[in-house]
Amino acid sequence: MSQTLRRLSLADATSWIDRAISRAPAEPAPLFAAGSRVVAEEMRAAQSIPTADQAVLDGFAVAASATIGASSYNPLLLPLRAISAGDAIPPGCDAVIPLDLAQPLPSGVVECVEPVAPCENVEVRGSVAAPGALLVAAGTLLSPAYIGMLIGTGLASVMVTPRPMVRIVVAPRGATTDSNGPMCHALVQRDGGVVADIVAVERNQQSIRSALEMESADIVLVIGGTGPGTDDHAAAALAEAGDLAIHGIALRPGETASLGHTAGGVPVILLPGSPASCFLCYEMLAGRAVRRLGGRDPTLPYRSRVIHTARKFVSAIGVTEICPVRCVAPDIAEPLPSFGEIGLMAAVAADGFVIVPEGSEGYPQGAPVTVYLYEGSCIGG
Amino acid sequence: MSQTLRRLSLADATSWIDRAISRAPAEPAPLFAAGSRVVAEEMRAAQSIPTADQAVLDGFAVAASATIGASSYNPLLLPLRAISAGDAIPPGCDAVIPLDLAQPLPSGVVECVEPVAPCENVEVRGSVAAPGALLVAAGTLLSPAYIGMLIGTGLASVMVTPRPMVRIVVAPRGATTDSNGPMCHALVQRDGGVVADIVAVERNQQSIRSALEMESADIVLVIGGTGPGTDDHAAAALAEAGDLAIHGIALRPGETASLGHTAGGVPVILLPGSPASCFLCYEMLAGRAVRRLGGRDPTLPYRSRVIHTARKFVSAIGVTEICPVRCVAPDIAEPLPSFGEIGLMAAVAADGFVIVPEGSEGYPQGAPVTVYLYEGSCIGG
Repeated sequence: MSQTLRRLSLADATSWIDRAISRAPAEPAPLFAAGSRVVAEEMRAAQSIPTADQAVLDGFAVAASATIGASSYNPLLLPLRAISAGDAIPPGCDAVIPLDLAQPLPSGVVECVEPVAPCENVEVRGSVAAPGALLVAAGTLLSPAYIGMLIGTGLASVMVTPRPMVRIVVAPRGATTDSNGPMCHALVQRDGGVVADIVAVERNQQSIRSALEMESADIVLVIGGTGPGTDDHAAAALAEAGDLAIHGIALRPGETASLGHTAGGVPVILLPGSPASCFLCYEMLAGRAVRRLGGRDPTLPYRSRVIHTARKFVSAIGVTEICPVRCVAPDIAEPLPSFGEIGLMAAVAADGFVIVPEGSEGYPQGAPVTVYLYEGSCIGG
Repeated sequence: MSQTLRRLSLADATSWIDRAISRAPAEPAPLFAAGSRVVAEEMRAAQSIPTADQAVLDGFAVAASATIGASSYNPLLLPLRAISAGDAIPPGCDAVIPLDLAQPLPSGVVECVEPVAPCENVEVRGSVAAPGALLVAAGTLLSPAYIGMLIGTGLASVMVTPRPMVRIVVAPRGATTDSNGPMCHALVQRDGGVVADIVAVERNQQSIRSALEMESADIVLVIGGTGPGTDDHAAAALAEAGDLAIHGIALRPGETASLGHTAGGVPVILLPGSPASCFLCYEMLAGRAVRRLGGRDPTLPYRSRVIHTARKFVSAIGVTEICPVRCVAPDIAEPLPSFGEIGLMAAVAADGFVIVPEGSEGYPQGAPVTVYLYEGSCIGG
């Protein structure tokens, strides 16, 4: 009945993911729909941007030198050259007076009442980018401002890393409503992946194996049935359907997570069915794989910060433990009840978590620890 | 030709938005698809969660007191009660020995070689939540862990604030490719809104007015034609199609942004067509409106941090200026060329920006300033 898991270290498991998974080949995407996509190939300016000096706002093009000495006591009359934002600056001019700071007169002149400096309200040729200058680096997650900037330079498309297609296979125990599929769906979306499908299967070896033999996704997550119990068949199904490379990881919660490939070479991650374990194994293993496939930064998608402990942290030697924490003062964090005690409440009630490595027994009160911070946590900026 | 804008202060403009716009009435959403939705009504536990003491992992249920003194030199034989993760703890037991730390024997007993503490590997009745305890507060953005936790407590749906439907009307000048529509599309998505459509219209009063009379969205953004020039018709079109409440804001870039309503009472924000101005007016005005409609935190969606200036910041009195900055050392930021000089490159090349208020002429070298940080900026944790 009882199988012994090998329990590889978490560091060895993440190294396996890093060796087994790399980003998919680039594909073109139209820039107008490329928000939040990851740039696969850097883009450089083909020419000076802008290609000519141009007005930043609507107004009157002038030679700045001709405005010296202008004031409301000494209005200067200059040739009327109305100009719209984005227009090229006409020859002989080098500045723009905003529309409402000068008065055009019927005689074809404009009355200027204050001096402007050279280049004022002018976007100078090449000021955004010189020919060959980097516009966007490979690996950049395209923010809205990048979309606007790149389309504005005249580009229409960009090479991006495809969003990874993720199959989620859930093998829940008995008639319980599955909460892990929807949770992992939301996690995959956060990490830039697309959930191809959530396949619910019966908790037996044949059903899980069949799900692993389905037409290809870029990665498959199997949830549930990873343990050493009599109704745990995920590891055996993977060993049969492909290879079970790593069976068990020295991670708490999450000891029964496993890694491997389908016969077709698609990476497979087995996540425990206990919700807190499923969550943490996604965070520590599956998320890294999804982000690597999609060309994103593979490290944890949380800010981290060194904070001091309000109380002692106790952790077992020989296993990496994930400890939820709450801030009790700026730069001071206290441990919360563990994921084992209160399940996912340990994630939603926390400001973040501390990863206590295998070799550590924990931390004394007042020790500095690296806290990974959940979005919107109250631990300062 | 030249119209004078009234130029309300930015603070007055944001107050107008806060008075004019509130979140839409709640709607139910199935929890399995509620990732990143905003909770409209708090949810509390109807009963103790879990409803009974339950096993955290697969193993053997025992009375902790019966394991005292167990060791490999003194194995204790206890009644065999195999238990799976999630099962209720049987009467008389209060702890679970993991499967692989005990050996079941054919005689119906289990050999225990180390003691366990009471409640070890047990999620105790009510430990996640007592009856009536808060499970999720109104205003919470549902993270993946919340989705898992709430479904795990037996809930199936949640009341959320609807995603705001946003119409984007673009009135570009001449034959230029519009970059503002795609940029604002990405910004609206970031802020939890849905772009109902991007309507490109000719740059004349009649076309813009017709777009403002289209069937309702929750908010309309009109981009371009906001200035005082001869081909600027957005403000006049809004005045005709509804009301133009605020015409011009003391914000640089972005002086020509305006606010109002359609005849049907839908809020309308006029954004300047110059890309950097469009971006900043979205950030300072439209984004706040979209986030308020969707029940999100209306403040800027950036972390902020007090950092010291590496050099003097110069800013005009009487206008709020948005100044891009780059970090040059931990906690030290220098100003970059302005949005007026290099357009949106000032957003993508920066680590963040400083808002210099109307009453300020800028900051001396070494002064503390609040920097709003772009995602992934190199300014620390």
